[in-house]
Amino acid sequence: MTLMVPFKQVDVFTEKPFMGNPVAVINFLEIDENEVSQEELQAIANWTNLSETTFLFKPSDKKYDYKLRIFTPRSELPFAGHPTIGSCKAFLEFTKNTTATSLVQECKIGAVPITINEGLISFKAPMADYESISSEMIADYEKAIGLKFIKPPALLHTGPEWIVALVEDAETCFNANPNFAMLAHQTKQNDHVGIILAGPKKEAAIKNSYEMRAFAPMINVYEDPVCGSGSVALARYLQEVYKFEKTTDITISEGGRLKRNGLMLASIKKEADNSTSYYIAGHATTVIDGKIKV
Amino acid sequence: MTLMVPFKQVDVFTEKPFMGNPVAVINFLEIDENEVSQEELQAIANWTNLSETTFLFKPSDKKYDYKLRIFTPRSELPFAGHPTIGSCKAFLEFTKNTTATSLVQECKIGAVPITINEGLISFKAPMADYESISSEMIADYEKAIGLKFIKPPALLHTGPEWIVALVEDAETCFNANPNFAMLAHQTKQNDHVGIILAGPKKEAAIKNSYEMRAFAPMINVYEDPVCGSGSVALARYLQEVYKFEKTTDITISEGGRLKRNGLMLASIKKEADNSTSYYIAGHATTVIDGKIKV
Repeated sequence: MTLMVPFKQVDVFTEKPFMGNPVAVINFLEIDENEVSQEELQAIANWTNLSETTFLFKPSDKKYDYKLRIFTPRSELPFAGHPTIGSCKAFLEFTKNTTATSLVQECKIGAVPITINEGLISFKAPMADYESISSEMIADYEKAIGLKFIKPPALLHTGPEWIVALVEDAETCFNANPNFAMLAHQTKQNDHVGIILAGPKKEAAIKNSYEMRAFAPMINVYEDPVCGSGSVALARYLQEVYKFEKTTDITISEGGRLKRNGLMLASIKKEADNSTSYYIAGHATTVIDGKIKV
Repeated sequence: MTLMVPFKQVDVFTEKPFMGNPVAVINFLEIDENEVSQEELQAIANWTNLSETTFLFKPSDKKYDYKLRIFTPRSELPFAGHPTIGSCKAFLEFTKNTTATSLVQECKIGAVPITINEGLISFKAPMADYESISSEMIADYEKAIGLKFIKPPALLHTGPEWIVALVEDAETCFNANPNFAMLAHQTKQNDHVGIILAGPKKEAAIKNSYEMRAFAPMINVYEDPVCGSGSVALARYLQEVYKFEKTTDITISEGGRLKRNGLMLASIKKEADNSTSYYIAGHATTVIDGKIKV
């Protein structure tokens, strides 16, 4: 087929263009999903060269507002954070919906509840399992990062398998210069996607404001500019370490070393049934707006 | 400033969307070049994540049709091949020019003459110096590529410093599986951007049809899908090896292993004054068409 369909490239975790993490969003709301093959979707995502390209389809059931399919240049993902926020922003604009305060996104992992509050888009993160790692592994990662960690790092199963490690403060995190060859070797050996490094900001007395960086040289991403799944992993790790007993909001800055300026808001929420849920929120702005030839 | 300006993302060396090499083209023909800083242009190119993003400005002199500035995600380039073809295509569409058969592009290296013939866009390549390399270097590169070369490879100064190496045939080239860690180490040590590997197609009796691949792991590009400067390097190398005495056209296919299907036409042209010039031609198709917020 050769069609021109609506297209947006949305910058996520920022209100200012070029400062966040981009996602390409293709509006297939008027296209029957059976009319496009997996290969066609994959070829488009391979070509945009962005970390993720998404496709909006009609949902399979009216309990959902839209269906989202998320692709990296190499494969389809069951879920991803920054593409969810960017695609929700695009969906609202494509459908000229300026009043919605909640939506349900259908994706491979099921229903993803989303809320919208004065432009801030928030999604409920899928649960992320926590797993300790060996002291040998910790020593190896300290060597690759070139810094001492202030708490034992852990493995967080957020979809991507992130190691989360804390350093003394935000400045130490910002200035870290990992040995990427060493880190690529170690993460490959351990089957981890990479390391989320974070340091608390000095003014944050209750440990709720962090500088974060995401290194994944094994998958050819030296540093991800603003990492949604990384912020889920960090929030889940902080809950394990600090045992917050009340709902706690955490602000996370990322991307400064790449001349980006992303801001993520993670909420560790104590639910009525005493369980703990994790929410990630951010702003988004549409930077490229037009049509794509498919 | 916050402006919506015309934007196109053009696929180059293909007539079919998603099969070539993309370039993002931003139309600043109505913007005073002094109004935008180097940092603003660089931030946009960093964000698109494409190998090149270009900016069309008014030319500095009426002998040129437009001025083109070309950026990778990290720096500005004096010239580049596939961005020239894609940007010319975008310029013609932005200015609704359907009749031009020749144009002159102003860029950092000076005037680049372009011709347009039934949709085929051709530019005259800047001269590329040829330099032999040592037998030790050749042996090292054979080890990294995992194949024997059929002629001594050489270093071609096309802007990027490409090593060009020929293997037995197109199929051998297509099936090559380089050791990227080894190749990254060697190219870094030698200060080469990477290797252009090519093999002649069996049906091409006069050695004028090739399968080509471009490997540059040192700059984090394992394999470039369709490489304009690589085709200049290959054509210049073939002239040195085969001493063509008449104008010779060479067709080059690239990208199959990355599920692209690029086609480049290189012309080794004998000029009236007995000098030899190199021209690279290809088709291009606009895939994304809209506006960008800057």
